[in-house]
Amino acid sequence: MCGIIGFTGKREAQSILLDGLASLEYRGYDSAGIAYFKDTGKISIRKTVGKVADLRAICDDDNNSTCGIGHTRWATHGGVTNANAHPHKVGNVALIHNGIIENYHELVETYDLQSQLISETDTEVAAALFNKLYNGDPEATIKKAVKLFCGSFAFCIMFKDHPGKIYAVRNVSPMVATYCKEGSFIASDLTAFIAYSKRYFIVPEYHILTMSADGILLHDLDGHAVEPEYLEVNWDVTAAQKEGYPHYMLKEIHEQPAAITRTIAPRIKNGLPDFTEDAIPDSFFENCSDITVVACGTAMYAGMVGRTLIQSMLKIPVTVAIASEFRYEEPVIGENSMVIVVSQSGETIDTLEALRLANKYTKKTLAIVNVKGSSIARESNYVLYTHAGPEIAVASTKAYTVQVASFYLLACKLGLVLHKIDETYAKDFIATLQKVPDTIAPLIEQADTIEQLTKRMINAQNAFFIGRGLDYTLSMEGALKLKEISYIHAEAYAAGELKHGTIALISEGVPVIAVASQQHVYSKVISNIREVKARGAYVILLSKDQSITDNSICDVHLQLPDTPDAFAIFSAVVIFQLIAYYASVGKGLNPDQPRNLAKSVTVE
Amino acid sequence: MCGIIGFTGKREAQSILLDGLASLEYRGYDSAGIAYFKDTGKISIRKTVGKVADLRAICDDDNNSTCGIGHTRWATHGGVTNANAHPHKVGNVALIHNGIIENYHELVETYDLQSQLISETDTEVAAALFNKLYNGDPEATIKKAVKLFCGSFAFCIMFKDHPGKIYAVRNVSPMVATYCKEGSFIASDLTAFIAYSKRYFIVPEYHILTMSADGILLHDLDGHAVEPEYLEVNWDVTAAQKEGYPHYMLKEIHEQPAAITRTIAPRIKNGLPDFTEDAIPDSFFENCSDITVVACGTAMYAGMVGRTLIQSMLKIPVTVAIASEFRYEEPVIGENSMVIVVSQSGETIDTLEALRLANKYTKKTLAIVNVKGSSIARESNYVLYTHAGPEIAVASTKAYTVQVASFYLLACKLGLVLHKIDETYAKDFIATLQKVPDTIAPLIEQADTIEQLTKRMINAQNAFFIGRGLDYTLSMEGALKLKEISYIHAEAYAAGELKHGTIALISEGVPVIAVASQQHVYSKVISNIREVKARGAYVILLSKDQSITDNSICDVHLQLPDTPDAFAIFSAVVIFQLIAYYASVGKGLNPDQPRNLAKSVTVE
Repeated sequence: MCGIIGFTGKREAQSILLDGLASLEYRGYDSAGIAYFKDTGKISIRKTVGKVADLRAICDDDNNSTCGIGHTRWATHGGVTNANAHPHKVGNVALIHNGIIENYHELVETYDLQSQLISETDTEVAAALFNKLYNGDPEATIKKAVKLFCGSFAFCIMFKDHPGKIYAVRNVSPMVATYCKEGSFIASDLTAFIAYSKRYFIVPEYHILTMSADGILLHDLDGHAVEPEYLEVNWDVTAAQKEGYPHYMLKEIHEQPAAITRTIAPRIKNGLPDFTEDAIPDSFFENCSDITVVACGTAMYAGMVGRTLIQSMLKIPVTVAIASEFRYEEPVIGENSMVIVVSQSGETIDTLEALRLANKYTKKTLAIVNVKGSSIARESNYVLYTHAGPEIAVASTKAYTVQVASFYLLACKLGLVLHKIDETYAKDFIATLQKVPDTIAPLIEQADTIEQLTKRMINAQNAFFIGRGLDYTLSMEGALKLKEISYIHAEAYAAGELKHGTIALISEGVPVIAVASQQHVYSKVISNIREVKARGAYVILLSKDQSITDNSICDVHLQLPDTPDAFAIFSAVVIFQLIAYYASVGKGLNPDQPRNLAKSVTVE
Repeated sequence: MCGIIGFTGKREAQSILLDGLASLEYRGYDSAGIAYFKDTGKISIRKTVGKVADLRAICDDDNNSTCGIGHTRWATHGGVTNANAHPHKVGNVALIHNGIIENYHELVETYDLQSQLISETDTEVAAALFNKLYNGDPEATIKKAVKLFCGSFAFCIMFKDHPGKIYAVRNVSPMVATYCKEGSFIASDLTAFIAYSKRYFIVPEYHILTMSADGILLHDLDGHAVEPEYLEVNWDVTAAQKEGYPHYMLKEIHEQPAAITRTIAPRIKNGLPDFTEDAIPDSFFENCSDITVVACGTAMYAGMVGRTLIQSMLKIPVTVAIASEFRYEEPVIGENSMVIVVSQSGETIDTLEALRLANKYTKKTLAIVNVKGSSIARESNYVLYTHAGPEIAVASTKAYTVQVASFYLLACKLGLVLHKIDETYAKDFIATLQKVPDTIAPLIEQADTIEQLTKRMINAQNAFFIGRGLDYTLSMEGALKLKEISYIHAEAYAAGELKHGTIALISEGVPVIAVASQQHVYSKVISNIREVKARGAYVILLSKDQSITDNSICDVHLQLPDTPDAFAIFSAVVIFQLIAYYASVGKGLNPDQPRNLAKSVTVE
């Protein structure tokens, strides 16, 4: 994780760095820091535990430096302390780092670096090594050093005797850069400098970047010059602003109907799914014997919905794998197996490595990704881009729903190609999917009701989300959302599984959020609810019933719109998101920036 | 759930009923009650919220009745109140019930029963219906009534004008019975009357049992007499006693080395797995294309270990399904798919129904079950009995380890038949498995150390178990154990997945129990531990390292014996069990009888 930014150009660097870091805070906010060349040629560092606002408070008001680097940290090695904050300076070298240097311990021993270290971080070891190897030639030094590192890294490095210059190199951990009229920018993510440029390029792995006010040079490790491949985004800085909402998360919850429409509309022709614009041929779906969905966190839970949908609709075996587990297993994947990887950022390291492994077994790899040109998008055989737009809140909302919607499109397409469903069925299915945005929009307007009921949950230590079938898969996302931003220990359970142990945790007042939107198991879920109700649980029930007045079933009933069963989950998840949001706000927390979390997980 | 017992014979019934209920308390202990014929011919009832000891306190000291029924309740419909406790008496009828009558609401309407009801239970509705239909002929009445019930049930019924007689009928919910020199016994489980008889028979579904002091008559619904099929157990009442241990759970933890040996020894011939005595032919394993393991709770987590073992060792796809979900899905099972169902009791209703569904798709069904002659054992095509002996503590310990050991035997056998491994490999594997009891026995002796460290956890609201690969599958069981008996909200996470949201719950002092026994992911787990340690977690690490003194990694290190990676989990789980046990005892709880839980889950 961690967010990094570098700027050298014709303007004051400090405010660019601080603003850029603020927009990168979703990547980590344990501590923050900047380093810059003073007009004396010396490198000065400001860093502190806390957020970018805390860093801003210790910066000088006027700072005429035009070259600097900045970092916002998500701690991996060593606790959250000022000493462990970046930038790290050793001798001639000051640097910032995103990633993990796994062999840092060996490097300390081999190069006898211990005496130079004051922090507990792997990053400071890297700084010490660069300094040890430094012979006055930054590029040669970097070339030598990167061959010694095991692990992932994105470095921005300043050498004391090369004022005005920033050097950068990466492996796995993401970096994008641009040269525009203000100067040269580099960052973990485009949002850090989109106010200045919508053009950018992805820094190639193991290439050395030399940035100055006059431009950017790019060389491979053999010293050959390489031309950057510029891309352009179709959204701008306002898409990444709050636009009157108190938090990004609430704004993004409201954006869901539009995001779903943006994602599905271009892929529907004559009422049927069509991936022509994505250049995914029908042959990709032919002979598909089985599917493995690989992802992490929320994206994995979107995959769980996909699994239950596809398996019940098409009778094709679907497995969902945790990316961090999958990549170290011996996966059972044949050449007709489809592997679908899902990631909002397209940079989730475990998912990326899982994709690389899957590519060795099958040509049928497909990515569902929100960020154009991201590593996962580039390395999978086909890509289905979700069009959620930039998601800033750490807890994913709209990115999840469009991932789920993508699985609905895929299920339908796959069913048609494999002749598991006919056109009439497919058209009906797609027509219902198209109506989803209209069914969820009115729910979002009921936010006040949901805010009220969450008041009852704020002091809860734990909570449970239960359901069966699709409702269960959805419950996983509901529980994760509540956990992430309210710190209430929520857990999802298949409603029938709760009594096999976990019901021991149910006592007076423990919130249980139950969904009963699937008619074929409706009565079973109600029986399970009675079991927890009999033990004092505070039950919030989501169902399509007009009302439920039997207080032996639930304390609060929230009505879901009358959609076909397979589509009810889109409504339910919006309610889950609002419950999590208001529980967080009610506890006085910032739902956009939950503690310990980072949006894009680029360390294992 | 619920436990039921009935006795009519030549001895005082009350003490037999109360002792029997005490041994059935693992099935539920929300409330308890008995009903008996007084010498006046009237039926008298004693019942109360609480445990059997509470019931005993309100019973008369001398009670010369020789015919009665008793019940210990696990609430499904209606809260835990005296009115809702069993037995229920309506008019001429007094009865006890295990199961759920799903259509009770319709029955109340159709038969106009509302005015006769004082409780909120489905059971009282059944009593009212029996009474309404009663025409002086118990058998005819039962015949009529059972055709009207939807759901699962085991009833013991007394009719006021038939003193000395107990009638019984069941569907799905278990009942066993015997006639011996003391008289006629019936119960949910043999443990209730094993002090009197080691012979018993399983009551066939939809047959009517008429019990008197002189014998038991059995008729099918057409009125034909049926001869009971008697079985005999090879353990006796002492196996179900504490033998000096403060709790059954601790006793059962200690019994694990012996239980593993009992389970594997008869299945090893010439150093190779051999299922001749189980009558499982090699042809059962041939052509196996994939495996689905279906189970609930702890048994499912044993299946998770099996999945990871078999998939990595043999490269056969293995899926683990939650039984309550599986039975309502459209399972993707071909004729060469193997379905393995796992259940300690062999009566877990969801698992039984899942097995029935699987039997429609494939002949390759196999049960791993601890109780001989149980429903699951009878209905699966093949059975591998675990020889754990009776497990009384609600939280499973030895039953889990022998289930896991069974998967090791199966993996090896399957590998040989499918030529995925050779004999040399297999012999080595089996030899290591045979050594497992010796490696875990010394660990159990370190209980004092573990008791000490749990003191630090007693006040925790939540806790996390993390690991990768086999360690992750094991963590699920560790978390469940802690949840069940200490009420600490523990959750297991794949170590690499924690940062995708749940790490938000990590704050100062939150216990994280980490396992790093798998060498190929050792350094990755250590990195993940550093991430939680950096956020203040209290880390207990289980690894094979001789010692770990770096306190940026863990607070407490517990050394695992130096076994091959695939076998380390047997040691780790014993430590997990002891952690849960001492956390429970430390909190002043009774680990044998956690609130809300029942051992054998015979409702959905």
